Amino acid sequence: MRGFFEPETVAVVGVSNEPDNLGRTISMNLLAFDFRGIVYEVGPKGGSLYGRRIYRSVEDIPDQVDLAVILTPAAAIPGIMEECGRKGVRRVVVETGGFSEFGEEGRRLAERVKEAAARWGIRFIGPNGLGVINRRLGLATSFGILDPSVPAGGISVLSQSGGVMLSILNTLTSEGLGVAKLVSMGNKLDVDENDLLEYLIEDHETHIICMYLEGISDGRRLMELARRTDKPILVHKANIGAAAGRVAASHTAALAVDDRVVDAALRQVGIARFRSTETLVHYLKALALPPLRGNRLAVLSRSGGHAVITADDCDSNGFELATLPADFLEAVQERFRAKVVRLTNPMDLGDLFDLEVYGDLAEATLGMPGVDGMVFLHTYVSGYEGPRSEELFRRLHRISLEADKPIAVYANTAAVEVTRLKRILPGPIFDEPFDAVRALALLRDFGRGMAPSAGRPDGPSDAAAVRTVFERCRREGRDPLLQEAIAVAAAYGIPVVAGRLAVDEAGAVTAAEELGYPVVLKVVSGEIAHKSDFGGVQLNLRSEEGVRAAYFEIMAAASSRAKGAAVSGVLVQPMAPAGRDLIVGAKHDPNFGHVILVGMGGIFVELLGDTSLRVAPFGRRTAEAMLRELRVFPILEGRRGQAPSDLPALIEVIRAVTRLVTDFPEIIELDLNPVRVHAVGEGAAALDARMRLRPAAG
Amino acid sequence: MRGFFEPETVAVVGVSNEPDNLGRTISMNLLAFDFRGIVYEVGPKGGSLYGRRIYRSVEDIPDQVDLAVILTPAAAIPGIMEECGRKGVRRVVVETGGFSEFGEEGRRLAERVKEAAARWGIRFIGPNGLGVINRRLGLATSFGILDPSVPAGGISVLSQSGGVMLSILNTLTSEGLGVAKLVSMGNKLDVDENDLLEYLIEDHETHIICMYLEGISDGRRLMELARRTDKPILVHKANIGAAAGRVAASHTAALAVDDRVVDAALRQVGIARFRSTETLVHYLKALALPPLRGNRLAVLSRSGGHAVITADDCDSNGFELATLPADFLEAVQERFRAKVVRLTNPMDLGDLFDLEVYGDLAEATLGMPGVDGMVFLHTYVSGYEGPRSEELFRRLHRISLEADKPIAVYANTAAVEVTRLKRILPGPIFDEPFDAVRALALLRDFGRGMAPSAGRPDGPSDAAAVRTVFERCRREGRDPLLQEAIAVAAAYGIPVVAGRLAVDEAGAVTAAEELGYPVVLKVVSGEIAHKSDFGGVQLNLRSEEGVRAAYFEIMAAASSRAKGAAVSGVLVQPMAPAGRDLIVGAKHDPNFGHVILVGMGGIFVELLGDTSLRVAPFGRRTAEAMLRELRVFPILEGRRGQAPSDLPALIEVIRAVTRLVTDFPEIIELDLNPVRVHAVGEGAAALDARMRLRPAAG
Repeated sequence: MRGFFEPETVAVVGVSNEPDNLGRTISMNLLAFDFRGIVYEVGPKGGSLYGRRIYRSVEDIPDQVDLAVILTPAAAIPGIMEECGRKGVRRVVVETGGFSEFGEEGRRLAERVKEAAARWGIRFIGPNGLGVINRRLGLATSFGILDPSVPAGGISVLSQSGGVMLSILNTLTSEGLGVAKLVSMGNKLDVDENDLLEYLIEDHETHIICMYLEGISDGRRLMELARRTDKPILVHKANIGAAAGRVAASHTAALAVDDRVVDAALRQVGIARFRSTETLVHYLKALALPPLRGNRLAVLSRSGGHAVITADDCDSNGFELATLPADFLEAVQERFRAKVVRLTNPMDLGDLFDLEVYGDLAEATLGMPGVDGMVFLHTYVSGYEGPRSEELFRRLHRISLEADKPIAVYANTAAVEVTRLKRILPGPIFDEPFDAVRALALLRDFGRGMAPSAGRPDGPSDAAAVRTVFERCRREGRDPLLQEAIAVAAAYGIPVVAGRLAVDEAGAVTAAEELGYPVVLKVVSGEIAHKSDFGGVQLNLRSEEGVRAAYFEIMAAASSRAKGAAVSGVLVQPMAPAGRDLIVGAKHDPNFGHVILVGMGGIFVELLGDTSLRVAPFGRRTAEAMLRELRVFPILEGRRGQAPSDLPALIEVIRAVTRLVTDFPEIIELDLNPVRVHAVGEGAAALDARMRLRPAAG
Repeated sequence: MRGFFEPETVAVVGVSNEPDNLGRTISMNLLAFDFRGIVYEVGPKGGSLYGRRIYRSVEDIPDQVDLAVILTPAAAIPGIMEECGRKGVRRVVVETGGFSEFGEEGRRLAERVKEAAARWGIRFIGPNGLGVINRRLGLATSFGILDPSVPAGGISVLSQSGGVMLSILNTLTSEGLGVAKLVSMGNKLDVDENDLLEYLIEDHETHIICMYLEGISDGRRLMELARRTDKPILVHKANIGAAAGRVAASHTAALAVDDRVVDAALRQVGIARFRSTETLVHYLKALALPPLRGNRLAVLSRSGGHAVITADDCDSNGFELATLPADFLEAVQERFRAKVVRLTNPMDLGDLFDLEVYGDLAEATLGMPGVDGMVFLHTYVSGYEGPRSEELFRRLHRISLEADKPIAVYANTAAVEVTRLKRILPGPIFDEPFDAVRALALLRDFGRGMAPSAGRPDGPSDAAAVRTVFERCRREGRDPLLQEAIAVAAAYGIPVVAGRLAVDEAGAVTAAEELGYPVVLKVVSGEIAHKSDFGGVQLNLRSEEGVRAAYFEIMAAASSRAKGAAVSGVLVQPMAPAGRDLIVGAKHDPNFGHVILVGMGGIFVELLGDTSLRVAPFGRRTAEAMLRELRVFPILEGRRGQAPSDLPALIEVIRAVTRLVTDFPEIIELDLNPVRVHAVGEGAAALDARMRLRPAAG
């Protein structure tokens, strides 16, 4: 990949003297960014530009060409690729649009370009992008005109969209955040985000990597790469909804994937996800601060109102306000001109008009061992207190570095002054109290979901038994039946509640007596999906009389409420002891492979969305983290004076499901719903199971 | 209130020639804002300022004084208030801090100020605020220096905090949003937000009212006032968490109230709540646009990436992307220089570099009957396309006004250019695609939760029966028992499931036989709060044998799991038919009165927070809206092929609870949990009830 970023000679292909020629703007950007190499222009009509000859073909260039940047009509590109090949060019950027986003014809053209590139060993970026920027070398291949005033720094950006790359660049420039390398990747026909990510992970100039993606080329590889590095990686994965998919398909031929899986996968490898440039900027500003090592903040504010707002924001972001010792506060009080404000944390600097004392207070407060970080809020009129405020901001930055703790600074004054400050100050400035607190929260949480790489969880696994079931299903061209699914689960060590099928009242009674009271009766019918909604389940039957009455009521309910449904009988199961019902499931994602889900069970599961996902495989601690994430976790843990649930047993179920899908990739869906978890030491058991297998190829 | 905003003569009290005198900055602001009236300075040391004499007392001023602005040490203020009274001043602003935020001494001082004011018929704003700004008259009483370049317009602001008022003012100035009147209210010892709100509702210059509140003085009156006007009201109610309360108490002596009640109350009267100045600005920009009459948006974007992001944002904000007819899109396609982008909505203007055509397209698209509004996204380099882009923005504004539909414009270019545009353009500019979409969503949803005023719901109400129960409870100094609470509910027409108490196994069997099988057994103990968690509930008992076994198990569970709890027996109830369990409750809020709650029942209710609140009383449609708000509503409505629940019966329960608390304000808490709702036509019934009464005074 290095060849794309450090060419000594660049050929711009598609330049002419026509007034609306876009290729020329590429040369213009190279000039504006002061590119340190040699530039050649190429266009079939010849002519000259910036005092340089426009060659009629790449092959006419009397020099070696390290990088060719092509912006010509799409139909010409396979031929130009051939020319590049013959000329010995091995790195190409294709900026032209009109490939796979335009149906069959475009796809054929794209295939020809790929073939030509492969034949000559050419790697290429694009098509349909703005190519590469290397700030240090002045390399800037965009055909959109760029602002060369962007500061140099350690932020690198990979963007599928050129426009989004430009707007990120604009925003970074105005926020005074410095960049290293940027790539607008377009349709990713050859080079994709993983190739570039791998390069940027090794690149010494790059300290933070940001990506804007509309599609993920290879989710598993992205995860592996991210695991390999300590550099912060930030991703905006757009193209979530159906509407976005419509334009993305025309735009960069990206396919929408299950967004919750993307969320889980990114978090699992410590990638932070953002959904707007605003949030990206909060992240980048936060990452410019010293690390936040705890959760206790001090808030210093010139305005009591901002102190109140910031305290609200600290609450909503899960921060604690540090307790400041009384003698410290008294010493502070002494220094106030007028004692009109009672000190506490948040500290209302209200009546104190001496900005030097603000700095002293900030230094003393941040130095205290019980304070992990600070939010400093300063409102002023720039014409009046501008220079003193600027000095204060610089001092707060020094204090923060010396204490090695973050201070998030909020400044409210005229917008032009804030804009100016952002470009000249060494530290970040936030536009809202909420932004400052949120940035500290992002800093605190960065990489928190990161889970170590893990192999297949060990434990019982009778693979032969499962294979027998699956082979039978495949032969018969069907998915496993309820009893088979239960047997498969059992073969991998998942406790299950077995049962007996009864086709009449007498059979139900016999089954009940054999199993022992109390029992449960469930209607068995391929056509009744939600049994309990139809009165198709009768619990807690404690006698023959009860079983008979229940059988009668189930059949009556089925015939009155689910008219015409074929009922094959009832399943008689021993009544499971009380417990909490959860769902444990798995599904196969085309991009990330198997994903494991755990959540609150029952009919509310999809509406309340209290579920947790992870890409398989993962270790025991991740399984536990999944449970902790659930809003119902406090119940499982035993809040409200009740017995805590058997979490280790539940974790074993999650691990067994992970083991099962790891061994049998052909399982594309698996639902254990409910898994009933009993009190500590009393285990957990799947009461129901459902499974779908990948249809045999061909 | 008018006297505060339109004085012809103002006295500034507390001015001296000392270098750190703050009173002088008040005079400075009046000068900078070019106040059209006469200003007098007052200070005990005399001297002169701006060529004017500093009088030693208000009474020395040789003129009538319409408004006095006081910034002196707190202890002097009662005396000055007396002077003002004798002088005939009837409107006073007190800016000094140090009153109720400073314990007992401050509170006594505050009382004396109030007494003096009352004696002389003086109304006053403050203490501990910055007073009043009337932009048109140049009245600006702040002791913080203000930027007089804020444009004049229709936005008025009431703020409890001076600092927050200043930061809102800064932000409005930089966003080019014009103001009418601003008040920093401070501690609200006399004049409060309701007095000022009433004035602003009548004020012809004010078109939009914004408030920053740390405490609400009188929630019911706020609701009444808001119901009276069509002017948009926007409220930032801060001071939500415990940490904020700590500083707010020292700051403006505000008390935190139940924030969810505040949410519900504001929404009920169409007040929009915001939690950051950023959101306020989105609201204000949105309200500057023509109304959004439907939910179908067109998205036009120069960058395909921004189109994708905006489509995501439309999805997440519940917008539809308008379907544009094929012939329209074809006509558009014809006008493109190169046909490299397939058109759809979002429309990717990608390869089209003619900004005039952008305007033509926007005009044609917005004119279509199936399009209710538009997001227009424009990224450009200001040095290159600045003037043409500015012309485009002006044209988009005209197009929007002519079509009487909103266009939310996103501009990405250098920050200084965006800042400049915001101050000179007639329409708003948004900083992020998300902001533009969100503003349209705010515009769409504004006032949507507004419920018409309603009286006590009619229906069955045996008040005498309830009174008898409550009088007995009051005599015995206790809250109603389970059976009494159930009787009270029944007296107001709420269907309940009655039961019989049994103290031994035989009693349970007798009760079951009298009630008829199947029955439920519940442990009865004042010391076991969550019966079912302890195995204290046995459902679906269908025979004598079942009842005996269940009785035995309950007693065993109680003695093993809730050791030492006094068990008075079991309650035998007929088994309620299957249904959905909800909670319906009421509580008394000190500020807003009775609040009604409905939500998902069961042990998950507090963890999942799927509840809906309204301030009582309200009509049938609001009761229904409460249910529609629940995430579980689709289940109640009968999704997944199951029978829909009896919503009318549930609504009657909500109305009966509302009726009951309206008639008996002494009910401070009431929980019907669960209320079981059966299928349509089969009703709903409270299975359990709990009630707390206000302790008798004294």
